[in-house]
Amino acid sequence: MKMILAELLSIGDELLYGQTLDTNSHWMSVELSKIGVKVIRKTTVGDVDSEILKAFAEAEQRADIVLITGGLGPTSDDLTKPCLATYFQCGMAMNEEALAEVTAFFKSRGRELTELNRLQAMLPTACEKITNPIGTAPGMWFDRGEKIFMSMPGVPHEMKKMMTDRVLPRIQKKFALPIIHHKIIRTIGLGESFLAAKIEAWEKALPPHIKLAYLPSLGEVKLRLTGMGQSYESLRQETDALAETLKERIGQFIYGYGEEPIEVTIGNMLRDRHLTLSIAESCTGGYLSHLITSVPGSSAYFVGSMVPYAYEVKMRQLGVKPEVLEKHGAVSEPTIIEMANIVRAKFNTDIGVATSGIAGPGGATPEKPVGLVWIAYSDKYKTVTRKLQLTQDRSMNIRLASSSVLNLIRQNLP
Amino acid sequence: MKMILAELLSIGDELLYGQTLDTNSHWMSVELSKIGVKVIRKTTVGDVDSEILKAFAEAEQRADIVLITGGLGPTSDDLTKPCLATYFQCGMAMNEEALAEVTAFFKSRGRELTELNRLQAMLPTACEKITNPIGTAPGMWFDRGEKIFMSMPGVPHEMKKMMTDRVLPRIQKKFALPIIHHKIIRTIGLGESFLAAKIEAWEKALPPHIKLAYLPSLGEVKLRLTGMGQSYESLRQETDALAETLKERIGQFIYGYGEEPIEVTIGNMLRDRHLTLSIAESCTGGYLSHLITSVPGSSAYFVGSMVPYAYEVKMRQLGVKPEVLEKHGAVSEPTIIEMANIVRAKFNTDIGVATSGIAGPGGATPEKPVGLVWIAYSDKYKTVTRKLQLTQDRSMNIRLASSSVLNLIRQNLP
Repeated sequence: MKMILAELLSIGDELLYGQTLDTNSHWMSVELSKIGVKVIRKTTVGDVDSEILKAFAEAEQRADIVLITGGLGPTSDDLTKPCLATYFQCGMAMNEEALAEVTAFFKSRGRELTELNRLQAMLPTACEKITNPIGTAPGMWFDRGEKIFMSMPGVPHEMKKMMTDRVLPRIQKKFALPIIHHKIIRTIGLGESFLAAKIEAWEKALPPHIKLAYLPSLGEVKLRLTGMGQSYESLRQETDALAETLKERIGQFIYGYGEEPIEVTIGNMLRDRHLTLSIAESCTGGYLSHLITSVPGSSAYFVGSMVPYAYEVKMRQLGVKPEVLEKHGAVSEPTIIEMANIVRAKFNTDIGVATSGIAGPGGATPEKPVGLVWIAYSDKYKTVTRKLQLTQDRSMNIRLASSSVLNLIRQNLP
Repeated sequence: MKMILAELLSIGDELLYGQTLDTNSHWMSVELSKIGVKVIRKTTVGDVDSEILKAFAEAEQRADIVLITGGLGPTSDDLTKPCLATYFQCGMAMNEEALAEVTAFFKSRGRELTELNRLQAMLPTACEKITNPIGTAPGMWFDRGEKIFMSMPGVPHEMKKMMTDRVLPRIQKKFALPIIHHKIIRTIGLGESFLAAKIEAWEKALPPHIKLAYLPSLGEVKLRLTGMGQSYESLRQETDALAETLKERIGQFIYGYGEEPIEVTIGNMLRDRHLTLSIAESCTGGYLSHLITSVPGSSAYFVGSMVPYAYEVKMRQLGVKPEVLEKHGAVSEPTIIEMANIVRAKFNTDIGVATSGIAGPGGATPEKPVGLVWIAYSDKYKTVTRKLQLTQDRSMNIRLASSSVLNLIRQNLP
């Protein structure tokens, strides 16, 4: 089966000069991938007609489907429509249906149609108009033999609604699409190269229709299996089976599958086991609590936390023994053990975790360099600590230390 | 003066299939625009060598500067380096300096160098190695007559550090760039359209060589003045004078200039006035503390915080009176006043602030809908509260409420 290829073309100076972050093409990639269309390229050009026309021609050579966003506004710097008319060698004419729609749109908002807005219903005659129910710029679908061009507004919610309701179903109808299935395996605690070394043999044995990609981020690596074939169900079974064999090699580093980040996994584990959590975080300064509470419904298991930043607060509010702090310092194993145990007792939770370290850039001593972080986990059966030597970067240290605590919880929950 | 043109080329299947949102090219656009380089196109291609090679050739035709990100990992799906070697018709060889750097990088983390990691020091011989101080993949700079290719890691913080410290200065040295000066005026507390209405006359009177852009983000709007001319000093004076006249119109909403976010401004105010801060944050769940402690040196004024998520913790640990909680509920003005005053007393600080609200999606009642948030500020002279009605989105509510507290501190510090 021939793969159907798409190219995404975004038009607008604001995307080139950094005024607007393009999130449209990312969303479109996800949706096209779901229906088995392969995106082969994304291109962004500015509001320059020669550039737009060149991009049209290049895209048509490479792809079956050219999806265009942006440049449909009513002002003179919006060039997509005249360029499409030039490219398809047709004129522009008032589309009466589009005019009725844009008139109704303004009426429903209690506004008069201006002349500029009327012009939004002028369309290249070679296109089929696609209704925009939540905006003023209609979409345009161009059929050219085996290929299509589709032009949509750049406003994200208008584009998304048009894609979902009209464009994706039409693409599925016009093209014979293969079945594509992705399976994401989420790992934590081992770098990309170490992971790759551990699964080298497994990777080499993958069948040719299933590809593996490594997607690293701070403290984590996602493994993505992409299978292509005739049946969604058999691909699902194949990739599930492969993920199962992966467990034998790197099972201890796998924390989940799909789109769920580790804080959601931890939340589900806590909720399922009816366990509660409290946190005493010093060097992570609230970020660990933020990750936990970013999950909707986290109040079911997260009871509260303390950020005992100052020495005094560690003693007076949290209640770390002065002699422990004085003898070993705030960044030490005896102190981190106290912190995790005390917060668990004080907040009356099943689990207590704690962080204390030198986030940097200041605060280091010869024995305690920037990036040194102690973390601890405490429950009624045990207390576990880890000493981390992280980076020179404050923000990375905060993130990496928080991620390490989440992994420590995952590894130790009773 | 000839404009210097750049094309940004991102490489990686994960960008085409929607696994990763490309934020790199947006950041690069902003930075290039600051030094007077014009971005004319952005292209994303997958991990396919023929596509990468074609994209190199196309980009070289169009632009003076080709900036490449991604595809530098140690695994076999990373093709940027072999493609660059093919394109520049050179071999690959072990770069001893790069090898020493990657070895030192692993050693500093107490890890052994694997064979895969060693390969990261194999570079096309035609390039000049650019050190990556915070990662394992070196950058590569290729000089080809009047044009340059620069290849960088796709990991955002590595790319940003390499661009800032090495690549942008080299570009400024190699190319004759126009003088461009940006002045950023940072505002908080008023939406874009209200701000625009207030400064309409001022904006219309701007000279033609100075442009204004509105850069809205959650809770804030940055105004950017961009001047282009022959002398940096006269542009600086002109934009400074314009910013001064802006104060007369919207002075109360301006909190700073340049790159400093509000948490840095607040930190400087607290430090300069020798004041200390504590926080009791419920619905913001640690995010406000995280913002404050993300600033290096914040331990000089930030003493600590409590996240009293559960009702019990609000009473027992923080010490809100049970009768206040029972009568008015956790999300109420009497409770938020208690929270701010108590945390200030308990942590013995000059300032106490507090948040309590319905972040959503759960927890709403007919009287207390999702997005309702109370915030409070307390010092020895006064206690100030604000009732906010924010959005339906949990993450936005957490961010907007935190931003509002920072603004409340700014407005009320003695």
